[in-house]
Amino acid sequence: MRYSTLFAKTNKNAPSDGDSANARFLVQAGFINQLMAGAYTYLPLGLRVLDRIKKIVREEMQAIGGQEILMPALTPKEVWETTGRWDSIDVLFKLEGAGGKEYALGSTHEEVVTPLVQQYVKSYKDLPVAVYQIQDKFRNEPRAKSGLLRGREFSMKDLYSFHLNEEDMRAYYEKSKQAYLNVFHRCGIDAIITEASGGVFSKYSHEFQTPTESGEDVIYVCDKCQYAQNREISEYKDGDTCSKCDGGVMRETKTIEVGNIFPLMEKFSEPFGFTVAGEDGKPVPVIMGCYGIGPSRVMGTVVEIHHDDRGMCWPKSIAPFLVHLVSLGSKDDEKREEILEKAGGLYEELHKAGVEVLWDDRAEVTAGEKFADADLIGIPLRLVLSEKTLAEGSVEWKRREEKEAHLVSLQDIIEQVEVFVKE
Amino acid sequence: MRYSTLFAKTNKNAPSDGDSANARFLVQAGFINQLMAGAYTYLPLGLRVLDRIKKIVREEMQAIGGQEILMPALTPKEVWETTGRWDSIDVLFKLEGAGGKEYALGSTHEEVVTPLVQQYVKSYKDLPVAVYQIQDKFRNEPRAKSGLLRGREFSMKDLYSFHLNEEDMRAYYEKSKQAYLNVFHRCGIDAIITEASGGVFSKYSHEFQTPTESGEDVIYVCDKCQYAQNREISEYKDGDTCSKCDGGVMRETKTIEVGNIFPLMEKFSEPFGFTVAGEDGKPVPVIMGCYGIGPSRVMGTVVEIHHDDRGMCWPKSIAPFLVHLVSLGSKDDEKREEILEKAGGLYEELHKAGVEVLWDDRAEVTAGEKFADADLIGIPLRLVLSEKTLAEGSVEWKRREEKEAHLVSLQDIIEQVEVFVKE
Repeated sequence: MRYSTLFAKTNKNAPSDGDSANARFLVQAGFINQLMAGAYTYLPLGLRVLDRIKKIVREEMQAIGGQEILMPALTPKEVWETTGRWDSIDVLFKLEGAGGKEYALGSTHEEVVTPLVQQYVKSYKDLPVAVYQIQDKFRNEPRAKSGLLRGREFSMKDLYSFHLNEEDMRAYYEKSKQAYLNVFHRCGIDAIITEASGGVFSKYSHEFQTPTESGEDVIYVCDKCQYAQNREISEYKDGDTCSKCDGGVMRETKTIEVGNIFPLMEKFSEPFGFTVAGEDGKPVPVIMGCYGIGPSRVMGTVVEIHHDDRGMCWPKSIAPFLVHLVSLGSKDDEKREEILEKAGGLYEELHKAGVEVLWDDRAEVTAGEKFADADLIGIPLRLVLSEKTLAEGSVEWKRREEKEAHLVSLQDIIEQVEVFVKE
Repeated sequence: MRYSTLFAKTNKNAPSDGDSANARFLVQAGFINQLMAGAYTYLPLGLRVLDRIKKIVREEMQAIGGQEILMPALTPKEVWETTGRWDSIDVLFKLEGAGGKEYALGSTHEEVVTPLVQQYVKSYKDLPVAVYQIQDKFRNEPRAKSGLLRGREFSMKDLYSFHLNEEDMRAYYEKSKQAYLNVFHRCGIDAIITEASGGVFSKYSHEFQTPTESGEDVIYVCDKCQYAQNREISEYKDGDTCSKCDGGVMRETKTIEVGNIFPLMEKFSEPFGFTVAGEDGKPVPVIMGCYGIGPSRVMGTVVEIHHDDRGMCWPKSIAPFLVHLVSLGSKDDEKREEILEKAGGLYEELHKAGVEVLWDDRAEVTAGEKFADADLIGIPLRLVLSEKTLAEGSVEWKRREEKEAHLVSLQDIIEQVEVFVKE
């Protein structure tokens, strides 16, 4: 992609929730644009990141047998009345349509997926089943804030699993934990599996909490065995001895919740009367679990974790591009042409090698501005072609996290980039 | 994919809008499930088709310079008031949130995209720009019906282009026509470019109309030069002489509208005060066009066009799988095992060759049921392994549109399938 033609470049916009690093950097780097508090447009650079996160999520959900579906966001009042949540979910957006029909915008989809699966799953032989979707969810959030971390509309992957008994659900639940850790690891963040409130049917649910000073959640986590509890349910306080290992100390830690999983048991199959015929032909209640990751929230969290005062530092796995190629100007017309030509050739060659490149080919923009933009945008590798490097037959090479650039000969550059991509 | 483990198999469900072929076949084949009138869940098979259509749309939009973004579905009242459409769009879903804030669910996105682009495009040098998104749109439709053809929530690709003058917009508008024809052609349907109402700022907009007896639109189309007008604006009647060519006759034709494009001119840039600095530094009003295709409506239309009394007939380009492999049973345990083993081997080999296969590996289902399911689902190529074919070292080969199968030797089958895929 040529930066000169990219829609939505770096800018000085100040988002209303510019208190958070993710809002400030993502907006100013031209990744997202705030339509109103809690609702953002994904611009071309931001959508590339979001799509990469979604792809990783899909791969890991498929690896544990999840089958992708897509449910409507617009849902009828009746299904929420069946479970009593029409009145109990306070962030449910409600609306009325033609003929006085009432709807809710899905803030979660148990009320849709349970009667859906019920229509196809009739016998113990049809279980287990796991289905998921990636879709925008809606929450009538009184205090939308912190950029992509707490929105009124946000991307969500929600998986639901259906089992013949609790044992089978628990086994799947454990598998999902590993899949979730894989997702976060691949996106470049750590997550601590944290016990949280389980509701009526289970003692605990589990949250995936990423430690960061900018986090709004507080957990107690053992400095030895990583056992953790959310403060909301914990009897620990900072400095307490861990009860799960020998000699560990529980530390109060600020975190962002990037995922959660919930053993639903019969919470939803009961109100919908979802049973299957067991081996003996008698009805058996279906046991459910649900599993959520917000791709947009992961994107915001990655920025909270991976930035410095100059801008964002994208992990290669979800960066919008892998290489930021910068061609500089020259007062000499002939040399300027030569730089552009060499840069164009390098751009094509990298493209052929399957490397995605953002090429800052702008005229009338100073080297200083281009470097500042590259740091803000945060693509993992910056290559610079200038009068000076060309005279030496080389390219300036700098990883985003490095302070100083070094030179690589033009002859070796493709090979070096290929090594960088694979490492 | 093994059909035995696929979520949502063929069924006898009768959708409430089962009058239309697309609703009946898509529901009964397990591609979609009706949540309520006008809102469907895409099941795994249906989502594969929808995603393939979206991919084709993306490729053609990128080919005409469209850059993908993603805007919120939840939009603030203010932007709709700016254009006066808060009150004039009767199908706008409106809702109220925390603090009395009012929102609309996007039924179209001019009110979001215009002020968005305005923030980044300041000079004549920044034009032209074309951005698009693929997203669910919402319409408070009093009479949702006809399966995927008229929904309350439906998939939409909406592209918006921004230009310095009408000439540039008109040139892009013509390019978009070809891109649209490419999309429909690649999805296996024809579309006739049809003049339709242009509103205040333009004489005509253009619709892409696919002829079919089940269509709700009526157009007059020349049987010689294909010049066409929507009945809503036309002074033609059936049998009239075409005014655009020599000797053509206008025929009244039922159609489904699968796309539309609209020269918006200054309709939206004016209320938002969207101008750019021209070459002389003076403000120039921005000229816009908009361009819509509904991927879910295309999916429904393809079924209306491509089916017979046994079920759907998917074009290869958007079929959920290319090959439907059917393994039959046997009373002889050893032979049954052998059939399963050979089928499993063939499944793996096709997979390795990059061919996507749905394998009906179910036990306890008769050959008759499996064949009926294969016809209903409508995958382009059916291969059958049975006691009889194995004895002959062969596989039964039948294209969906063929009545009779023929035998292909097991040795040649991979090569034959590869030829089929490429042709």
